[in-house]
Amino acid sequence: MTIVLYDLASRDDLRFSPNCWRTRLALAHKGLAADAVPTRFTEIADICGGGQKTIPVIEDGDSTVADSWQIANYLEETYADAPSLFGGAAGREYARFVQAWVQSQIHTRLARLIIKDVHDILTPEDQGYFRESRERAFRRSLEEIHAARDAHVDDLRRALTPVRQVIESQPFLGGEAPLYPDYLVFSALQWGRTTGSLALMADDDPLNAWVERCLDLHGGLARSAPARAT
Amino acid sequence: MTIVLYDLASRDDLRFSPNCWRTRLALAHKGLAADAVPTRFTEIADICGGGQKTIPVIEDGDSTVADSWQIANYLEETYADAPSLFGGAAGREYARFVQAWVQSQIHTRLARLIIKDVHDILTPEDQGYFRESRERAFRRSLEEIHAARDAHVDDLRRALTPVRQVIESQPFLGGEAPLYPDYLVFSALQWGRTTGSLALMADDDPLNAWVERCLDLHGGLARSAPARAT
Repeated sequence: MTIVLYDLASRDDLRFSPNCWRTRLALAHKGLAADAVPTRFTEIADICGGGQKTIPVIEDGDSTVADSWQIANYLEETYADAPSLFGGAAGREYARFVQAWVQSQIHTRLARLIIKDVHDILTPEDQGYFRESRERAFRRSLEEIHAARDAHVDDLRRALTPVRQVIESQPFLGGEAPLYPDYLVFSALQWGRTTGSLALMADDDPLNAWVERCLDLHGGLARSAPARAT
Repeated sequence: MTIVLYDLASRDDLRFSPNCWRTRLALAHKGLAADAVPTRFTEIADICGGGQKTIPVIEDGDSTVADSWQIANYLEETYADAPSLFGGAAGREYARFVQAWVQSQIHTRLARLIIKDVHDILTPEDQGYFRESRERAFRRSLEEIHAARDAHVDDLRRALTPVRQVIESQPFLGGEAPLYPDYLVFSALQWGRTTGSLALMADDDPLNAWVERCLDLHGGLARSAPARAT
């Protein structure tokens, strides 16, 4: 049975949400068919009969599961015979740590670089919600954040050093093959790749080869979303 | 048979090295008896018949193993029936990632806060080596780095956010029980605890409870090194 994934989408149906990409790649990793339904910020309140505040949300038969971490755990338990997302109990702790690291150290830095670009690809209704909520959180206008972004590129690149060091000696954060930590970090960079108007990594950054490997996974699933930066 | 660990020591035999603490805690985790031989920076060239450049180094019967990561892997393979340091293949990748993160994001920030304090506890011979090598690396005098340290405390605390988030919902980075990632992060803070003259964490930081749990492990092994900060 096809699983329904409510997947954040732009005005032109581009899929850019890092948290939704985690789930999309997790479903593909498990070999599960999924219907990624385009959903705008201002439509989230209406999905699944109401009551949802964020996406991703999946519907799998009678089960509705929200939150990318809860979904990853649900998939790992429900589809235990499919390839593992975590690689065991300690690997699940690996994913938990990398998620905390990505959200606190990478998403925050990346948002400063792309927040205005994200705004610009949304529907008019979503733009109103997005500007209001994000300007309140950052206490600055999107235009002010955007104007200062060049000064923060090196800060993001330095923060990614642990990933760079690991993938210089092996193909994936999971080792020879990807695990959920790869999807967590890659999905952050996919957020930048699909929405951002500047190149996040230098041309000679070893991270580029790992990004390409992630783009190739699962039949080139993530490559199906076009890159905006040129 | 008792394993010999060459363990970095101060003038007064205090054990402060983060990389040596990793190994000491790994040996204890495996339930292995160890003789932690106090070794100064300027004595490293003379241990094990010469040729060593850094410590920790262990001697286990006929085997000599250098580098804390190589030692952890050696112990895991050689003493496979003892409690696991990694918890399996994915857990080994967890440790690899956390080591890259600790070394690139935490040791660097911590060094700015404690480097002069570390210098001050060394033997006169070690002080000469330490000042020359560290001032060359930082391109500033130890006194200049020390004078600027208060401005960097919050930066360290922010960088530790991923650990703080994980241990707010469970006892250890390894889950219910410690794994090598706990020792990697704790040993960095133990470096600060044993040498530093300022408190690294705020009194109400949730990390303090996790540090206390780590100090209690293996019969209070890490607590045997006195804290300098008051």
